[in-house]
Amino acid sequence: MSDNRLSHYDSEGRDSMVDVSYISANKRTAAAHAFVSMKEEVLAALPRNPKGNPLEVARIAGIQAAKKTSELIPLCHSLPLSHADVVCTVREDGIEITARAATTAQTGVEMEALTAAAVAALTIYDMTKALDKAIEIRELFLIEKTGGKSGDYRRQAGAE
Amino acid sequence: MSDNRLSHYDSEGRDSMVDVSYISANKRTAAAHAFVSMKEEVLAALPRNPKGNPLEVARIAGIQAAKKTSELIPLCHSLPLSHADVVCTVREDGIEITARAATTAQTGVEMEALTAAAVAALTIYDMTKALDKAIEIRELFLIEKTGGKSGDYRRQAGAE
Amino acid sequence: MSDNRLSHYDSEGRDSMVDVSYISANKRTAAAHAFVSMKEEVLAALPRNPKGNPLEVARIAGIQAAKKTSELIPLCHSLPLSHADVVCTVREDGIEITARAATTAQTGVEMEALTAAAVAALTIYDMTKALDKAIEIRELFLIEKTGGKSGDYRRQAGAE
Amino acid sequence: MSDNRLSHYDSEGRDSMVDVSYISANKRTAAAHAFVSMKEEVLAALPRNPKGNPLEVARIAGIQAAKKTSELIPLCHSLPLSHADVVCTVREDGIEITARAATTAQTGVEMEALTAAAVAALTIYDMTKALDKAIEIRELFLIEKTGGKSGDYRRQAGAE
Amino acid sequence: MSDNRLSHYDSEGRDSMVDVSYISANKRTAAAHAFVSMKEEVLAALPRNPKGNPLEVARIAGIQAAKKTSELIPLCHSLPLSHADVVCTVREDGIEITARAATTAQTGVEMEALTAAAVAALTIYDMTKALDKAIEIRELFLIEKTGGKSGDYRRQAGAE
Amino acid sequence: MSDNRLSHYDSEGRDSMVDVSYISANKRTAAAHAFVSMKEEVLAALPRNPKGNPLEVARIAGIQAAKKTSELIPLCHSLPLSHADVVCTVREDGIEITARAATTAQTGVEMEALTAAAVAALTIYDMTKALDKAIEIRELFLIEKTGGKSGDYRRQAGAE
Repeated sequence: MSDNRLSHYDSEGRDSMVDVSYISANKRTAAAHAFVSMKEEVLAALPRNPKGNPLEVARIAGIQAAKKTSELIPLCHSLPLSHADVVCTVREDGIEITARAATTAQTGVEMEALTAAAVAALTIYDMTKALDKAIEIRELFLIEKTGGKSGDYRRQAGAE
Repeated sequence: MSDNRLSHYDSEGRDSMVDVSYISANKRTAAAHAFVSMKEEVLAALPRNPKGNPLEVARIAGIQAAKKTSELIPLCHSLPLSHADVVCTVREDGIEITARAATTAQTGVEMEALTAAAVAALTIYDMTKALDKAIEIRELFLIEKTGGKSGDYRRQAGAE
Repeated sequence: MSDNRLSHYDSEGRDSMVDVSYISANKRTAAAHAFVSMKEEVLAALPRNPKGNPLEVARIAGIQAAKKTSELIPLCHSLPLSHADVVCTVREDGIEITARAATTAQTGVEMEALTAAAVAALTIYDMTKALDKAIEIRELFLIEKTGGKSGDYRRQAGAE
Repeated sequence: MSDNRLSHYDSEGRDSMVDVSYISANKRTAAAHAFVSMKEEVLAALPRNPKGNPLEVARIAGIQAAKKTSELIPLCHSLPLSHADVVCTVREDGIEITARAATTAQTGVEMEALTAAAVAALTIYDMTKALDKAIEIRELFLIEKTGGKSGDYRRQAGAE
Repeated sequence: MSDNRLSHYDSEGRDSMVDVSYISANKRTAAAHAFVSMKEEVLAALPRNPKGNPLEVARIAGIQAAKKTSELIPLCHSLPLSHADVVCTVREDGIEITARAATTAQTGVEMEALTAAAVAALTIYDMTKALDKAIEIRELFLIEKTGGKSGDYRRQAGAE
Repeated sequence: MSDNRLSHYDSEGRDSMVDVSYISANKRTAAAHAFVSMKEEVLAALPRNPKGNPLEVARIAGIQAAKKTSELIPLCHSLPLSHADVVCTVREDGIEITARAATTAQTGVEMEALTAAAVAALTIYDMTKALDKAIEIRELFLIEKTGGKSGDYRRQAGAE
């Protein structure tokens, strides 16, 4: 951590959108993780018929949220995503969410992947909250990123 | 749990926005919690000067996100919030976020409070990620809600 | 047609959002219809597995679009919907869409139902266009409305 | 139709935003058509004075909707449009709408042109509905597209 | 000025959306003013034909912006407008804009009227800037407001 | 002024989004100015503590508005900003606002800078209006722009 500064701060300590005008556009990807912890009975009630499924609604909500990231995160740059995807998997004690995003741009897509995972998790919450108000979203973190000046990153197992 | 059905599903199992036409509007509040876990060095670098502050940007982002909840969560009703607030507090190992929302409407504001907390947490992540890619958002849950047909709810200490 | 004036025009012929300040809020509903005409082979390729389904994506897109109506239609009032739903049914030569919306407000929800049907139809188009560029959306019309000063309306069979 | 798959589906049949990371950006255009069928009396009442005109409001609404396409169509990529235009022409039995869009990007603009045409049509509906509730929108289809891997397309006369 | 506090600040000096839960909904209106000052030649070039007119585009943009106010102004409540209108008048040395908004709600619509006037002015700027880069927007102020706890207000002539 | 035409008008005088398909993307910047004139007592009440500050909220609102410009200004192209910043400075009789925007694109960012300045000014108005309803926003103009076919521009001192 040679340069101990927060991003989004200019030389006078004012927050601003980081100026990326002189950074060249290159391919960047990111993957994020979230977990929605819920009671066994709620998990059992998740419908499995093709007509409607909280996990499917959550996937679509997550993909759409990835496209809205720069509206939600004030100092985040807007960029055209070349790819966004969300996978929801039923685990023993909840739903595991993995979100991926990619672009060819001057800034990375970590926030897009994290926002997609967060909104997918909130959507599952919304659709199951009538059964279990103690549902908890946790382990929302970056799994990996590629591209960009700061290089690739991959979260180490058992990092938290 | 006498009525073992997920919300947002009609009698044929299709997802839809729940019809609340016959529910009367009354005062409803909700509070939600999130925690952004980060390294000590990152916490120490959070600027404390009046010109700009990640916690302040996060508060504003959270309040604005509360107003956007129905755009993000597909089957969530849109409603006019009478109040929204976000408080960010520095703890030993991260930032604790509490978000509150209130309305007088036919549906509750749990999702508004949770969305505000989640987006405030993501904003802190965005502004500190240059220093620590292992930052994790956790303990995103409902603290309490009041009003509405299902009555009041208060999360029990040590519930997770 | 005793009062031969277009809505959204003031006494000087300028377009504006109609002033509904003195109209009392009451229950209003509307239903709209759309049809997406496509080749048999494209219909046959619509996946029927629970993991993903153009009709399900279209339903969610339609419900979300209903909430965005006042952003899309310039002189349309914004109002909180108490209900929105979209049903997509496979027919011999295409997909039939029925969208419903309800509110308790000073203006009707015809545009919300029509917008939901249109966006659901466009979403089906988007997900099938790789197979058939000649897909056509037609029969986008109001099926019925209830509530409001102008009374109830129900489209007559074979009206078009 | 050598590759009989719907777009937006990955190899496991899950819907996702198609990954276009490895497609190069090139010039793409599209034109779409819609028709708003209405009674002669309603057509006659369309104001022709310069102060306000449903066709003018519809044009602006259509252009703005083109820019919002990726918000409305869940799996549609967001892209910067280099051009958008809508032309509304009074015909004997209704209003004919032609919408055009162009970009230099990794994906096409068919959905942008179709969304512009659809929203322009809905706007005309909104502004004339007080006079004629049986107004119908039909013939919403792609006229032509250029650019992209799948080549150029031009709808054949009398295709429907 | 008995209570010398800024709005949007809680008792600890933190900014928040003011809690209006205990204020009853009543009729409120507001009118705002803006002036776009430009060279005579630019004014002369404003098209007067019915096909398109910067003043007409500006009116529509202003009305739409009124509906977006709570998205733009962070601590502003969202509310359903019962009316919004913008009038643009050609004066000797520029364009005068008057915007009006009305609602029946717990908070006033000053910001909605001001936002409508500002965005209408910016739209005129956008459409004339090729001819005159020195265009200036000025005199953006509240003309009057009615309703609400703080009573009616009417700007005095020559106030600035 | 050799080519005496308004932008956004095609050869038939219809308004449209200017076609920039054949313009190459290059670096463009713009800076805009606004002034919020207010009474001395209101200026004195602006909180100076790090917990919340109208000028800080205004900065964030302005930066976010820059990203929304193409949603607000109907015929404005959407483009990815590489930079946006807003500076608010307390002057003797009000708050001076300077907004900057940059991109590498086919069109300029004058409207983005002006929109950021306008929304920052409106936000200050919103947060101080309880103390002074006669607050006025003025001197909203372009300070300078660089890049693009029409060349660089710098406003001359005392231009208005």
